[in-house]
Amino acid sequence: MPDGREVERSPTWVARDAEVVWHGFTQMAAYPDNAPVVVERAEGRELIDVDGRRYLDAISSLWVNTLGHRVPELDEALIDQIGRVAHSTMLGNGNAVVVELAEELRQVVPVRGAHFLFASDGAVAVEQALKMAFQYWLNRGVVRRNRFLALGDAYHGDTVGSLSLGDGGFSSSLFDPLRFPVLRAPGYADPEWSTKACRAVEASADQLAAVVIEPLVQGASGMLCAEPGDVAALGRACRRAGVLLICDEVATGFGRTGTLFASEQCRLEPDLLCLGKGITGGYLAMSVTVASDDVYRAFLGEDLGPETFFHGHSYGGNALAAAVALRHLRLFTEWDVLANVRARSAQLSARLDERLGAHRAVAAVRLRGLMAGVQLMSPGPSARWGRRVSAAAVRRGVLLRPLGDVIVVMPPLTVTAGEIDRIVEVLGDAVDEVTG
Amino acid sequence: MPDGREVERSPTWVARDAEVVWHGFTQMAAYPDNAPVVVERAEGRELIDVDGRRYLDAISSLWVNTLGHRVPELDEALIDQIGRVAHSTMLGNGNAVVVELAEELRQVVPVRGAHFLFASDGAVAVEQALKMAFQYWLNRGVVRRNRFLALGDAYHGDTVGSLSLGDGGFSSSLFDPLRFPVLRAPGYADPEWSTKACRAVEASADQLAAVVIEPLVQGASGMLCAEPGDVAALGRACRRAGVLLICDEVATGFGRTGTLFASEQCRLEPDLLCLGKGITGGYLAMSVTVASDDVYRAFLGEDLGPETFFHGHSYGGNALAAAVALRHLRLFTEWDVLANVRARSAQLSARLDERLGAHRAVAAVRLRGLMAGVQLMSPGPSARWGRRVSAAAVRRGVLLRPLGDVIVVMPPLTVTAGEIDRIVEVLGDAVDEVTG
Repeated sequence: MPDGREVERSPTWVARDAEVVWHGFTQMAAYPDNAPVVVERAEGRELIDVDGRRYLDAISSLWVNTLGHRVPELDEALIDQIGRVAHSTMLGNGNAVVVELAEELRQVVPVRGAHFLFASDGAVAVEQALKMAFQYWLNRGVVRRNRFLALGDAYHGDTVGSLSLGDGGFSSSLFDPLRFPVLRAPGYADPEWSTKACRAVEASADQLAAVVIEPLVQGASGMLCAEPGDVAALGRACRRAGVLLICDEVATGFGRTGTLFASEQCRLEPDLLCLGKGITGGYLAMSVTVASDDVYRAFLGEDLGPETFFHGHSYGGNALAAAVALRHLRLFTEWDVLANVRARSAQLSARLDERLGAHRAVAAVRLRGLMAGVQLMSPGPSARWGRRVSAAAVRRGVLLRPLGDVIVVMPPLTVTAGEIDRIVEVLGDAVDEVTG
Repeated sequence: MPDGREVERSPTWVARDAEVVWHGFTQMAAYPDNAPVVVERAEGRELIDVDGRRYLDAISSLWVNTLGHRVPELDEALIDQIGRVAHSTMLGNGNAVVVELAEELRQVVPVRGAHFLFASDGAVAVEQALKMAFQYWLNRGVVRRNRFLALGDAYHGDTVGSLSLGDGGFSSSLFDPLRFPVLRAPGYADPEWSTKACRAVEASADQLAAVVIEPLVQGASGMLCAEPGDVAALGRACRRAGVLLICDEVATGFGRTGTLFASEQCRLEPDLLCLGKGITGGYLAMSVTVASDDVYRAFLGEDLGPETFFHGHSYGGNALAAAVALRHLRLFTEWDVLANVRARSAQLSARLDERLGAHRAVAAVRLRGLMAGVQLMSPGPSARWGRRVSAAAVRRGVLLRPLGDVIVVMPPLTVTAGEIDRIVEVLGDAVDEVTG
């Protein structure tokens, strides 16, 4: 295990990587100098790089991994499906394992009479939801409800539609000429956000197709957290105004916040729910838009008729991904994963408060379940504290990746008490080193 | 093998499926009556449904499958990678198998000094390309080049950005209030398309970020085909006008048209190339945007600076998909797959001409490589000839799915001479049955 000394890291692999791979959300000119880990394999919650160094995966491989890597049960389900079929199309045809997955998901999602349209990228689940909401009203003969209300600091993905719903983070305003306009209420950073958002819904009800939120936690904006009651109030306002509610749980779904879906804590029954990331336990690309029976039925009509949702992705409902997702969902119950999330969340919260709550370089510690953000009191973006603290943790064998000056801590849901202690200890040392 | 009689088909599975799965591009009210195949497993180029019936996969599972199903070499590569790691993030970090894949792809793509940004859905590869083209000019200080030129009948995907590039097919004009405006030249249905498109590029050069095309074949619009020389002329016009060229080869890529990429036949060197579908042989969701070194270098700058491409998808560069894609690429050479595509393409072309070329119900037969479309001379959309001919073929054990009244024939690239004969025979009988 690296002990904090600067170690030479696989210069050949990093150079080869930087020459051909364009990494997302990454300034490639700086990539080789920012302590990238080139992963070769993994064991449990540890990633192992091309030189055999081990890193505790404290960001769940960018928020997707739930039960750790190389889970024997998931591997077995995948290998079993390889022996059947890897993929067959969902366009006008079906696949048995996808039916089984959708049936079991229906038992647990907070959507009434759920119907499942699968895709692969999370942003696409959001695109599908917004297009469904838009067409829903047209199919019902309502032409004026064609706008969306989203929150300040929102992030819903990077495709043009999902980027339009998002706020101006990550330089996205650069793309304004391509984005459609959206009504915006304040985000979770504003203590009055809920009152203001409810008022905005009432004021614009007759032109709104839907309200789009990340329930409970605005993840990519730095783990901004809401009170469940405030989110519930917005849900009620939507219902009163007859406006559809789209919950984007791509990040919060599948146990990350302590319940299977964050919507549950907020007593929400969204009309459209977007899922991705954790759905396959972090193994394979899969996303899904879940529509209520009410939404779904607005699309029924004559074959090839205009009510049809003419939208579909080649690999939506991939059988290999579905087999893993199905086994993963069952493991959640078999292992009582949520009990571990709650226990480790309480521990992580307490440890972060003890070690960093009163630290002079820390502005705030925010947490829901096992989604945590430590906001550094940075001297400014050019100091790159977030980047440097994460690199210092990586040198100590704990993989972190920041959002600006917010250090994200999001371990797999099966993380142990010892691993939580280690993450906080390493993070504390890294903060001391960079800001001391 | 079904012999053409109407057989009862797994009513329980179809009902279960229709209850929970929302199928893309499918009117769900009509789904159960349109002879859906609920696949349980596969062998070679045959899909096997939940009742054990077998279907020759003559649409390559919606244009993704290349070498058939359950290819031992691909299964082996996948299982080997399962023993390493299923997935680790590409955001600021790397994975060895993704580096290897990108290095080998670089040897074969028609892009100078290629860099690879991976995603999962094909539409997202298009979204990435259009955003890269848009930001490319801003990063270079050119503010007026912010528009796109695309072709009539174009289809580039269903997300808001890719839908904006597409023309009005599949009721997409419904979403006009969400789409950004695009300059449009005629598509391949117009014999003068190339001259007109070249003229449009010259006329609007100073406001164009990029021209977007599907080289050689406009697939989803009904296999509309272009002459390679006409496409080459448009490429030269872009170069002269200093406009970026985006080639969407999600459908045409990986051997489908007889060369590894259709751009090769058209002597194009696109600045941005979008790949998907066949990249994993039809096994797993993976897409990629390939950028030339010139495009890539416009994004280099200070860490976290405004030149950065702030865009990325959680499962982009999935290790399992990359391992399959890598082995798949090598099999193309080892098996000389392209030689089979060329031989079977000539045979398919000849057989379709013999059997259907002069058929009174057939308006045209179009083909490039193993992408073929048989345009029916339909009495009108309500007759649903495309749908009914395909259903008649499915009853005979050949899986087809139409585009309106165009019957698509797109078998896996390893299709045998006997299978080509069988597909044409069954299709001929199905056309006779429905239109006779």
